[in-house]
Amino acid sequence: MTDKKKYVYQFGAGKADGDRTMRELLGGKGANLAEMSRTGLPVPPGMTITTETCDQYYKNNQKWPEGLKEQIREGIRFQEEQLGAGFGDPENPLLLSVRSGAAASMPGMMDTVLNLGMNDMVAEGLAERTGNEWFAFDSYRRFIDMFSDVVMGIPHESFESAMQKLKDQRGVKEDNELTAKDLRDLVDRFKAIYRRETGFMFPNDPMEQLEFSINAVFGSWNSERAKKYRKINKITGLIGTAVNIQAMVFGNMGETSGSGVLFTRDPNTGENKLYGEYLTNAQGEDVVAGTRTPEPIKNLKKALPKVYDQLEEMTRKLEKAYQNMQDIEFTIQEEKLFILQTRNGKRTGPAAIKIAVDFVKEGIVNKQEAVKNLVTTAQLDQLLHPQFDDKAIKDKKVIGVGLPASPGAAVGKVYFTSHDAEDAKITGENVILARVETSPDDVGGMHASEGIITSRGGMTSHAAVVARGWGKPCVVGCDDIVINYKNKSLTDGNHTVYEGDWLSINGTTGEVVLGQLPLKPPKLSNDFKKFMKWVDEFRDMKVRTNADRAEDATKAKEFGAEGIGLCRTEHMFFEGERIVEVRRMIMSDNEKERRESLARLLPYQKEDFLGLFKALDGDPVTIRLLDPPLHEFLPHTEDEKKDLAKQFGISYRKVKDRVAALDEANPMLGHRGCRLGITFPEITEMQTRAILEAAIEAKEQGAVVLPEIMVPLIGSGDELIDQKNVIKETAEKVFKDKGTRIDYLIGTMIEVPRAALVADEIAPHADFFSFGTNDLTQMTFGFSRDDIGKFLPDYLERKIVLHDPFQTLDQKGVGKLVAEAADLGRATKPGLKLGICGEHGGDPESIAFCYKQGLDYVSCSPFRVPIARLAAAQEAIAQQENK
Amino acid sequence: MTDKKKYVYQFGAGKADGDRTMRELLGGKGANLAEMSRTGLPVPPGMTITTETCDQYYKNNQKWPEGLKEQIREGIRFQEEQLGAGFGDPENPLLLSVRSGAAASMPGMMDTVLNLGMNDMVAEGLAERTGNEWFAFDSYRRFIDMFSDVVMGIPHESFESAMQKLKDQRGVKEDNELTAKDLRDLVDRFKAIYRRETGFMFPNDPMEQLEFSINAVFGSWNSERAKKYRKINKITGLIGTAVNIQAMVFGNMGETSGSGVLFTRDPNTGENKLYGEYLTNAQGEDVVAGTRTPEPIKNLKKALPKVYDQLEEMTRKLEKAYQNMQDIEFTIQEEKLFILQTRNGKRTGPAAIKIAVDFVKEGIVNKQEAVKNLVTTAQLDQLLHPQFDDKAIKDKKVIGVGLPASPGAAVGKVYFTSHDAEDAKITGENVILARVETSPDDVGGMHASEGIITSRGGMTSHAAVVARGWGKPCVVGCDDIVINYKNKSLTDGNHTVYEGDWLSINGTTGEVVLGQLPLKPPKLSNDFKKFMKWVDEFRDMKVRTNADRAEDATKAKEFGAEGIGLCRTEHMFFEGERIVEVRRMIMSDNEKERRESLARLLPYQKEDFLGLFKALDGDPVTIRLLDPPLHEFLPHTEDEKKDLAKQFGISYRKVKDRVAALDEANPMLGHRGCRLGITFPEITEMQTRAILEAAIEAKEQGAVVLPEIMVPLIGSGDELIDQKNVIKETAEKVFKDKGTRIDYLIGTMIEVPRAALVADEIAPHADFFSFGTNDLTQMTFGFSRDDIGKFLPDYLERKIVLHDPFQTLDQKGVGKLVAEAADLGRATKPGLKLGICGEHGGDPESIAFCYKQGLDYVSCSPFRVPIARLAAAQEAIAQQENK
Repeated sequence: MTDKKKYVYQFGAGKADGDRTMRELLGGKGANLAEMSRTGLPVPPGMTITTETCDQYYKNNQKWPEGLKEQIREGIRFQEEQLGAGFGDPENPLLLSVRSGAAASMPGMMDTVLNLGMNDMVAEGLAERTGNEWFAFDSYRRFIDMFSDVVMGIPHESFESAMQKLKDQRGVKEDNELTAKDLRDLVDRFKAIYRRETGFMFPNDPMEQLEFSINAVFGSWNSERAKKYRKINKITGLIGTAVNIQAMVFGNMGETSGSGVLFTRDPNTGENKLYGEYLTNAQGEDVVAGTRTPEPIKNLKKALPKVYDQLEEMTRKLEKAYQNMQDIEFTIQEEKLFILQTRNGKRTGPAAIKIAVDFVKEGIVNKQEAVKNLVTTAQLDQLLHPQFDDKAIKDKKVIGVGLPASPGAAVGKVYFTSHDAEDAKITGENVILARVETSPDDVGGMHASEGIITSRGGMTSHAAVVARGWGKPCVVGCDDIVINYKNKSLTDGNHTVYEGDWLSINGTTGEVVLGQLPLKPPKLSNDFKKFMKWVDEFRDMKVRTNADRAEDATKAKEFGAEGIGLCRTEHMFFEGERIVEVRRMIMSDNEKERRESLARLLPYQKEDFLGLFKALDGDPVTIRLLDPPLHEFLPHTEDEKKDLAKQFGISYRKVKDRVAALDEANPMLGHRGCRLGITFPEITEMQTRAILEAAIEAKEQGAVVLPEIMVPLIGSGDELIDQKNVIKETAEKVFKDKGTRIDYLIGTMIEVPRAALVADEIAPHADFFSFGTNDLTQMTFGFSRDDIGKFLPDYLERKIVLHDPFQTLDQKGVGKLVAEAADLGRATKPGLKLGICGEHGGDPESIAFCYKQGLDYVSCSPFRVPIARLAAAQEAIAQQENK
Repeated sequence: MTDKKKYVYQFGAGKADGDRTMRELLGGKGANLAEMSRTGLPVPPGMTITTETCDQYYKNNQKWPEGLKEQIREGIRFQEEQLGAGFGDPENPLLLSVRSGAAASMPGMMDTVLNLGMNDMVAEGLAERTGNEWFAFDSYRRFIDMFSDVVMGIPHESFESAMQKLKDQRGVKEDNELTAKDLRDLVDRFKAIYRRETGFMFPNDPMEQLEFSINAVFGSWNSERAKKYRKINKITGLIGTAVNIQAMVFGNMGETSGSGVLFTRDPNTGENKLYGEYLTNAQGEDVVAGTRTPEPIKNLKKALPKVYDQLEEMTRKLEKAYQNMQDIEFTIQEEKLFILQTRNGKRTGPAAIKIAVDFVKEGIVNKQEAVKNLVTTAQLDQLLHPQFDDKAIKDKKVIGVGLPASPGAAVGKVYFTSHDAEDAKITGENVILARVETSPDDVGGMHASEGIITSRGGMTSHAAVVARGWGKPCVVGCDDIVINYKNKSLTDGNHTVYEGDWLSINGTTGEVVLGQLPLKPPKLSNDFKKFMKWVDEFRDMKVRTNADRAEDATKAKEFGAEGIGLCRTEHMFFEGERIVEVRRMIMSDNEKERRESLARLLPYQKEDFLGLFKALDGDPVTIRLLDPPLHEFLPHTEDEKKDLAKQFGISYRKVKDRVAALDEANPMLGHRGCRLGITFPEITEMQTRAILEAAIEAKEQGAVVLPEIMVPLIGSGDELIDQKNVIKETAEKVFKDKGTRIDYLIGTMIEVPRAALVADEIAPHADFFSFGTNDLTQMTFGFSRDDIGKFLPDYLERKIVLHDPFQTLDQKGVGKLVAEAADLGRATKPGLKLGICGEHGGDPESIAFCYKQGLDYVSCSPFRVPIARLAAAQEAIAQQENK
């Protein structure tokens, strides 16, 4: 090894240049291989070209840096020494695998080349040395296929069809029915395809093959599908991929050879047992491709018990070393076990919880590590996913049962292409994606779907692995059904389901069911409760919920909500008879009539609030005053308007005129929020009265009440002063009427950009700010949520925005306003209470941002509360560790 | 005078405690009186209570500060000494006037009390001393009336009707036909009214009268009408009013007495001659009230030639002293002239220009002073007001001719109350306000009107003065017509005009005409051109224009525009056959069809641009790419949709579906601006091609072309990069096609709040930023311009906003974003060109703000260009002077 810039890190023979701390530099696989080798695991010798080299390659106009080639040669010499073989030496050839490996795991995303170093002479030599001509030429033809596909971009299908043609000619069905001679023939045909497609001879020189392959790995870093995966998975900040070049070992050397993948624990349930699959006489890619159906790992115990015991022992070692459940690839070459790679295993939400709790129990990690590393918010989310409500199901038409690849129930309209699925999702549909099998090109559609079904592939197929990672219900290998892309339909022979028809899938049982099955909410395990208790030990930002009804609030409290951050009073206005009174109020000609209608609405509102105060006993309840423009409450069709006229005994013309008068060009920017309260103070009066009378009553019934009245859409200090005066005057009247007083707060939403800009003018009059980041995002971007579907897909596609800004807070723009408002507000009024009640309050990345801004709480929908708790705890631990 | 806090400043006898620099402290009147006295003008002796005293009075819970009373007593002693009279002394009584006077002129706004010090004994004494019992008791009854009205809030009408009743009883028509005995009777009746209304006896003690009156002046500072006037006139930052207490002189002591008002030059034309009116045997309020029609000032030359000469001489002195045209109130007491007050005279736009140019010519001021002080932007605006196009008028039904009180022509629908006028204005109507006479309560409606007509009052009546100040056409004293408030109509006996009917008025000739007369643009004088040349000598910020057509651009260039800051390409899309092609493009099913339609639109756009480039020869032309959402171009009624279907030979259903598909909940925040160019790059391509091909052609025809392509609605750097790439690629194609290259710029609007927040990310890709403050205001406030009418009046009324933010830039909120974008932009790219093209670019206050932010240019509608030039020059001078 050299004094110059180190591009290449070697490993093998129980030693390694790198270790597992060097993920950034060596990528996940490279660091693991180094660590595994260092800890004495049977890793085939190899070397890792660093991610920095990839970065330099791009910076250097796609040329290798000075010295790289020499370091690679050194690495090969080391491998040759270790295995006593020679690169390109027909007598005893060293064959190599070339794999990508970035710092973050991207399954199936990066291109791989196997059997590199093969040429006519080497193949002959290998046949001679192993006495297995079939194996040698099978490896050769595989290499040509892979190299052509991955490095030269020649479609794999060309080789597939050439092979199919040969099989047809020979009258055989399976690959392994071909003879060695057939494979020699195939090699020639493959080389001819290569020549036809590229115009060049297939490269014989192993070093030339290696250079091309390394460049292909570098190139795959910036392939569209890799970029898309990084986008969907929000992977940023990496500089490139490492390249792992490792001596090949062979699982296809006969019946005592094989390849497999395994998880150290069950990735579906978390159960502490080996979980995986293997294929006899096969190389690794046969297992994951889903083209042959593999055997469960437990069968290996019978077939090769020593190897199985060795595997079990090693997995315990690995879990301790990596402090996480591991996903391992292995190859058995003539009864000799080689570990090809290990990485943190993807798992379902229930599994993550069980593994986290078990790891603490087993002393592998402590509670803080468990909270920080072993459960993601996405995994937690799965726990809260619904299941089918079996009791409510009367008639269930199961049209197929496949492998239960990712648990949970999903119902949606079926689509057959990734693109169609994405389009349907944008229009607000729930989607089931049905594919024969999935490839990395399908990740967009998979992400857009509620659930995924494939007719081919195993539990570790692409579809299964990706779906589990996202916690999406998934059924794979369901060969009871046939999928027809051309007609956009699937059928079990009796029932045919077309694009847009409803389908239900059960990822826990593997069932595929016609129509829309009823769903029921999930049940939470004791492990879940234990884990969430640990979460709260590390969390110091409060989590509230957005809830309008006592039942939702109670549910949220069960999920750990510490108050209501947003109760939308208008939701109550739509129910039953209330809407009649609301409409009567809107149709009123004068304040007197309006007040009469409002007086009739008062008892309803009061009753709702009473329920909330009693449910939240001891926790604050933030109630927002009426927000939407009044026309939202009026009917819009002619018939409805006529009914209304009849109901109120007024002319149709009057109803029509009033609806027209209230109509707005841009309702989002219209007569709504505090603007209503300013022009119709009697509405603010009624709502204030309802809130405070309910609070007094709840208190009298023994509840501890903490009402917080929130004024929406404030854009200036004077608006808040106006409404605050109305609220305070009304409150004094209520206190006088009731002969008692209670404490209450008055605060405001910060949701209009101007409010953030003049927060110093607003803060003196507010007890709290609650960031309404939905509207703040709409106005800061100038994006109407209702209309964004017309261009957002293009924007995401072309990376003009990286996330939907309504899902993940735009920190650079909207976040700047949040930060400015927080700073101005607290500078003016130290200790001003700050929270967020937009939907970003349930988004982990946005929650981390809120934590950094020093917000007192986030508020989100009841089912997001546990997620918010975990996100807040993880960010708190991260901040603590960074100190 | 005392060592303690000085509340009272005395003047008289050729001396004064204050001078004209003390406007803030003494108010306009007080400072003038001090200055006048100091320069030896015959001012009745008096004193001024400072504005600070008013402020302290309010801060002190409406109580007088310690020492004020004593200082007032000292002042009275001084006046008693000067006139040899005694306050409350029946032998030789000193009577006082008490007048308000803030630092800014507010005609008619502040309450005044005259003849103070009067009681039964004083009236008797005055009658005896002057030998004029009639005058004494006329003064007395006037005093009771005024004191009751102003100080005690008893309606003036009570006294009017008592007087009318007495006149009816005596069988006389005019006030002066009443006998002295009648007036004694009237005093008793007036005192009885006072007692009935207040429950107290009328105060006899002159000091008590004085205290009450001073408090009334203080109180009038915060009267609703004063506050409204300040709001409309944007008068802020004053702390209170001063109180001027001055010895009374009497214009009502017989035929050698009188009162008058005069301007040192003609306030309509600027002609250098005395201009004003006087009334014989009358006090000042008779002249301005409009209840008796006064005589022109020139008649005084015949009646009292010495006094006239004295007046002429003094006015020259005053103009030199104040460096401005003066508005003087005077009283002649038995042939002796007293100047009661002088102030800068309000004048029309043409007068302001002529006076400014003449003042420089006469050496009274230099050019800088003339530009800074002698013409306001509002006056300039009047010059640009339209006149009636006499040639185009065929049939003109003149229903009356009144006094031409404020020049210019106005056409609108007639309304009869201030409130109705304001309401009509909000719905977008042009309004003519018709009143018998106006009072300060009418200022809201006057402001909302295009023009004003009254059936009573003279050239210095309230209506005339206020209208001239605002440059609104106004006809007063038009007694040919009768106004009926109850029926809301006016009539000349033959024609009756009802509320909402069209009326045209000519403020230059006094004509009132039925219906809608055609208007023509104004012609600009040589004085105007000379003055604007001076303006440009002091201006260092560029002024461009917003223009879409060559003819508008040419007009703007005549007005001094230095380029086009905003050409809205979509305006061109609506004309003639183009809209057909635009609609065809929108109805296209695919890119190919869209491109075909765009190709047919190209020649139209190119021709328009060619005209602009040729018109702007040598000045930059900023062309904005398509901005509005596509649905704006489609028909909306069923019939129109059917026509379109027929025209294009497609089904009605298809048209309907497309219109529905394009419909948006909030078009302002929808699929528009650069979002169109991103989803349909072919539109950007076509427009770029049209712009650059036109520029090349114009250049070939000899014009110097400076095209600037502006991308609207940018919210992130990536959006601009996307569109910039399309533009640059297209440009290269055009240059290749045409075999020549030209320079062009690519820039962006900053109109989305996020753009301002991330301006550092956008600037690297932009040659210029143009602030689109219309949309920026909409999104920063969350105010839809189309919908704001539902609550803005309430907001203005309750001072939640002080101005319509679409008229005057909101500096605290929107301005903060402008400043932030300017700073971030220039920090990233020094020398980045900055401009504004929102309508604020024509608003003087907003222009001053833009100057402070270092913008390179403002852009406004052609008719605002001269105003923008003047505003920019005035701000430049102000900044220079502040250095």
